[in-house]
Amino acid sequence: MSGPAHASYVLPLLFLFSALGAADASSRCSNNQGSSLVRNIGDMPQSNFGRGGLAHITIAGALSHGMKEVEIWLQTFAPGTRTPIHRHSCEEVFVILKGRGTLLLGSSSLNYPGKPQEFAIYSNSTFSIPMNDPHQVWNTDENEDLQMLVVISRPPVKVFIYNDWSMPHTAAKLKFPYYWDEECFYEPKDEL
Amino acid sequence: MSGPAHASYVLPLLFLFSALGAADASSRCSNNQGSSLVRNIGDMPQSNFGRGGLAHITIAGALSHGMKEVEIWLQTFAPGTRTPIHRHSCEEVFVILKGRGTLLLGSSSLNYPGKPQEFAIYSNSTFSIPMNDPHQVWNTDENEDLQMLVVISRPPVKVFIYNDWSMPHTAAKLKFPYYWDEECFYEPKDEL
Repeated sequence: MSGPAHASYVLPLLFLFSALGAADASSRCSNNQGSSLVRNIGDMPQSNFGRGGLAHITIAGALSHGMKEVEIWLQTFAPGTRTPIHRHSCEEVFVILKGRGTLLLGSSSLNYPGKPQEFAIYSNSTFSIPMNDPHQVWNTDENEDLQMLVVISRPPVKVFIYNDWSMPHTAAKLKFPYYWDEECFYEPKDEL
Repeated sequence: MSGPAHASYVLPLLFLFSALGAADASSRCSNNQGSSLVRNIGDMPQSNFGRGGLAHITIAGALSHGMKEVEIWLQTFAPGTRTPIHRHSCEEVFVILKGRGTLLLGSSSLNYPGKPQEFAIYSNSTFSIPMNDPHQVWNTDENEDLQMLVVISRPPVKVFIYNDWSMPHTAAKLKFPYYWDEECFYEPKDEL
């Protein structure tokens, strides 16, 4: 067949290389990114933001690119690493590009997350997190990175972090701005 | 090095095969999809919706999966094919996974789109469309498919279509529900 778009899909190899270091904060925050409409993801800044085994790139962000309603991250977790147990009051969709792992999903109807449900996640799968449900994503593979695109609404994200699954929802600690938003977050100073 | 997540990124081959045909509409719309939290994209329904050379999968959608604030599509355009010239009052972000093409971007400050700016788009690039700006995406390659993830806010999308770049904004024709939303769109009947 001559190139029909409907026969099969192939995602190519995407090679991304770290570009952090050369640019200072001001050039990575929204005021200075408006001029380049099309961005090469391989040239975008990435960091682990102090979390070992994480690589995060904000592909389109509120603070970094002026998005108002959606934000997109490319994240890679090294074998054995995971997100904190956390919740947020926004929609979140994952598209798994590489690797495998486990989604742990607690309850928002009890006073605490409780014993989480476990779901296998794998390359070429997708899932969304019900708003405000406590959850955690693990790379459970011993060898392969877990890589995913993450889409959220209502950026910048306000994350409530739990120490464990029995911590009351009311005790979860707000982390705002979140790690990758800190650099570009500007809070007007009280004038008094 | 032993599997550092920060060294480089590799997106694997994603093979998706058409799963349309076996399931009827009711099983593809939101009421019946809540039970499978993690979905294999390769098993999700795809179609060209009457547009030759297009393959569209709604990865997470308002009508198909109950999303309220974001929606994600996986789209493939055969060589030479393109979207209509159109606008919408929502945010839209593209992540190009494969192929190359051209983004044409008109103006929303005149009474009509006018001569569009042209931007080269390519694998591993990303861009977002300013809200309400008329635009068109072309696969300008002669051989390779153009494949992309598309994220929108405010689903389901309300699309205004232009015949050409000199058509007044006020004459652009609303297409709602859009092609891939028609099957799952339910409009309550007037009781009178």
